Amino acid sequence: MNVHIVLAHPSPTSLCASLCDEAVAFLTANGHEVTVSDLYAMKWKAVADYDDLGSHTDGTYIDASGEAYRDGGLSEDIRTEQARIEAADAVVLLFPLWWFSMPAIMKGWVDRVLVNGLGYGTTRGWKRYGDGAYAGKRGMVITAAGGSETVLSERGVSGSITDILWPINHGILYYTGMDVLEPHVVTSAVTVDSDRYQNLVAELRERLEGLETDEPIAYRSQAGGDYDERRRLKPGRERPGTSGFDLHIA
Amino acid sequence: MNVHIVLAHPSPTSLCASLCDEAVAFLTANGHEVTVSDLYAMKWKAVADYDDLGSHTDGTYIDASGEAYRDGGLSEDIRTEQARIEAADAVVLLFPLWWFSMPAIMKGWVDRVLVNGLGYGTTRGWKRYGDGAYAGKRGMVITAAGGSETVLSERGVSGSITDILWPINHGILYYTGMDVLEPHVVTSAVTVDSDRYQNLVAELRERLEGLETDEPIAYRSQAGGDYDERRRLKPGRERPGTSGFDLHIA
Repeated sequence: MNVHIVLAHPSPTSLCASLCDEAVAFLTANGHEVTVSDLYAMKWKAVADYDDLGSHTDGTYIDASGEAYRDGGLSEDIRTEQARIEAADAVVLLFPLWWFSMPAIMKGWVDRVLVNGLGYGTTRGWKRYGDGAYAGKRGMVITAAGGSETVLSERGVSGSITDILWPINHGILYYTGMDVLEPHVVTSAVTVDSDRYQNLVAELRERLEGLETDEPIAYRSQAGGDYDERRRLKPGRERPGTSGFDLHIA
Repeated sequence: MNVHIVLAHPSPTSLCASLCDEAVAFLTANGHEVTVSDLYAMKWKAVADYDDLGSHTDGTYIDASGEAYRDGGLSEDIRTEQARIEAADAVVLLFPLWWFSMPAIMKGWVDRVLVNGLGYGTTRGWKRYGDGAYAGKRGMVITAAGGSETVLSERGVSGSITDILWPINHGILYYTGMDVLEPHVVTSAVTVDSDRYQNLVAELRERLEGLETDEPIAYRSQAGGDYDERRRLKPGRERPGTSGFDLHIA
């Protein structure tokens, strides 16, 4: 399998960077091909703007970015990342949970790479949520959070990490068509001693072993018949007692 | 009241930029003092890194950023924003909903400005969720989304916009102590004709009229007695039948 890992951490000696190295070593030893975009090391441009769009310097930003994509005018760093995703069977986003989301540099990777006409579209018929440019690929978040497992649970003061990651897992990865695996979340990650680190590496390897075979989250496909013509879940489709984001899991 | 608006849109002729202008005009006409940080116009640096931290060029990023904050060594652009928030009674984040979150440039404003020791802390006793540096200030999101109101509802394929914005409203604004107002969400915002624009301006003004007086979202304070020593909602505190993020609203 070809795996593309996108890493975002300012320190090369961070837990995230170490886990990235471990992931590369493990996947490579298991016969996979791995590419890594270490966004900080690459000095990735985080801000999506008209400078990315070649000759398309006016019009609405959405229209201009769609035109730049269609005519091949996007900046080279964007096209390189698009090619890496295209070549990958699985995409892994590896980041510290900053303010309950990804660091800005990785949000800028999403904003700039998953451009209008590729990652999303504005038409009613656009293939999204389980279908689209990245259908058939797998997607997975690996994140390290300062909060404890308890704090990041449904009754914990920060709320459920599953729901906190919904905008990324469902709104980005699944939106573009990927099969999304359960996220791998390292909690209480501010201080990790060497014993715990060994455990974390073992847990990471276990998850990576399932990267090709684990059942993805059973998000409902937009085109699967569960939604009406206004993209609303049809009455009675949900499991009894479910509400919120869980409505959208079969 | 002093209001600080943070705007993030690459086009000065966008709906977001226009609504920002309308907000400034309306608030000023009503006797408020308004500052605006137009992040794209300012060429705001989005990426949080060691370059922000003066002489603190090593150690973990969290520790180094906390030290830089304490000794006044943070970059000037960060200190300017911190002073603007400090002077404000209300902070408004105004952005297009990109990938179900804020654009990277605004995430970078959050990452860089709300630094360790000011916006967040790593100790158990850190004052967060309803208490902290920004207690007494008000916070509000104004966002424009491409999706329809239906698509962004609980049964809509994208999920509830209230829950999608939870990581921002609860995880950023309330975390730092602010009283958070209901977000103002403009849906189906890709194309807006002039009739609809006039309606949008009227709706915006109505919300801004309540900026000083509207009841904030009744998030539960960490220190309010609803959580146990592990920061978990005590049994029986919730309204019957609530689940998910709603557990944390009194």
